[in-house]
Amino acid sequence: MNKKVFRNLSYGVYVVSTLDGTRPTGCTANSVMQITSEPASIAISINHDNYTNGCIARTGTFAVSILSEDSDPGLIGTFGFQSGKDVDKFDGTAHTIRDGMPVLDDCCGYIVCRVIDKMETSTHTVFLGEVTDGDVLETAPAMTYAYYHNVIKGKSPKNAPTYLPEEEAAEPSARWVCSVCGYVYDGEVPFEELPEDYTCPVCRQPKSKFVRK
Amino acid sequence: MNKKVFRNLSYGVYVVSTLDGTRPTGCTANSVMQITSEPASIAISINHDNYTNGCIARTGTFAVSILSEDSDPGLIGTFGFQSGKDVDKFDGTAHTIRDGMPVLDDCCGYIVCRVIDKMETSTHTVFLGEVTDGDVLETAPAMTYAYYHNVIKGKSPKNAPTYLPEEEAAEPSARWVCSVCGYVYDGEVPFEELPEDYTCPVCRQPKSKFVRK
Repeated sequence: MNKKVFRNLSYGVYVVSTLDGTRPTGCTANSVMQITSEPASIAISINHDNYTNGCIARTGTFAVSILSEDSDPGLIGTFGFQSGKDVDKFDGTAHTIRDGMPVLDDCCGYIVCRVIDKMETSTHTVFLGEVTDGDVLETAPAMTYAYYHNVIKGKSPKNAPTYLPEEEAAEPSARWVCSVCGYVYDGEVPFEELPEDYTCPVCRQPKSKFVRK
Repeated sequence: MNKKVFRNLSYGVYVVSTLDGTRPTGCTANSVMQITSEPASIAISINHDNYTNGCIARTGTFAVSILSEDSDPGLIGTFGFQSGKDVDKFDGTAHTIRDGMPVLDDCCGYIVCRVIDKMETSTHTVFLGEVTDGDVLETAPAMTYAYYHNVIKGKSPKNAPTYLPEEEAAEPSARWVCSVCGYVYDGEVPFEELPEDYTCPVCRQPKSKFVRK
């Protein structure tokens, strides 16, 4: 089996969110798809290790914020490369409570769901959600995973369904890589000459978190 | 709720196939996503009305052929706007048996799965498949649903999770529409002046199947 074929499956880039008690929390996700049209339902796949997983199981509700090509790519790092157990990811992130759930303001649309079923796998839970609310928020095209990977040069964290262990090995040597999210710097200015307040465009970590590979 | 938000979810375009006894059959699908990476599993959503649904349940095995931007869009109509109960969709469609399952030759990659779980909804079955085989077949970019919708001007059949009842109403009046698949002719040559052997680029039906709306 050639695992590179999984790169040919197409996805969007989403932030799946819920409440931890009264505190908003969430995580970046790719695996979101519509299951039925009438009544509308969607499925999401969330790793058991994601703090969001247990919070969705407890509240029985989640929201999906759909990132657009105009959304700040830093949101992917904020929600994707750190845990909601340790960090209040929504602190400093503009959001609005919609149908009881936290939704990012910087996205092209959102969907709120009530969990109606779930399926367990070895590492992930597939939550089936009946849609209770949803709207389009802006007209920019939805960000696809291909756009994130090819244009923003982003990577998947290790607990994502779409993570490919080989992806590091495919990079050429002697490049500066963010040790937190795997972003590879490819600007025209040599990395050493970047200002000291340079931050990773994906996860917002400081220049000091980059390592030469 | 504004159902137009579902248009902002991103998908690929796939043919999900299996065997009806010894006869290959299958249907067009958008709702395919990876669930786990190790061991690799994917989920698909198939309408109860799709003949493929019962065939997958019986064989416990399915394949996903991933269409690319270079794939013949006619495949979408062949597999999407007619039933495998009535028609041998693989008759005249180049394919190869891979790991026991029929896979299109005109695609950028394939995945073969053994069904390990399923979840029923009111209209669709979500099959969870453990991946037993898969490979990349060509380097052309995977066709996204957005590409199918915006570039090929294709539509969803009524039993697709992504079907939007409003989509007909959004079209301007006095256009020629394929009565089989909903494709709207938008070429520069007036429809009436097209040659008599013109066929729908999506479902390959003859010019006579177009109606003025």
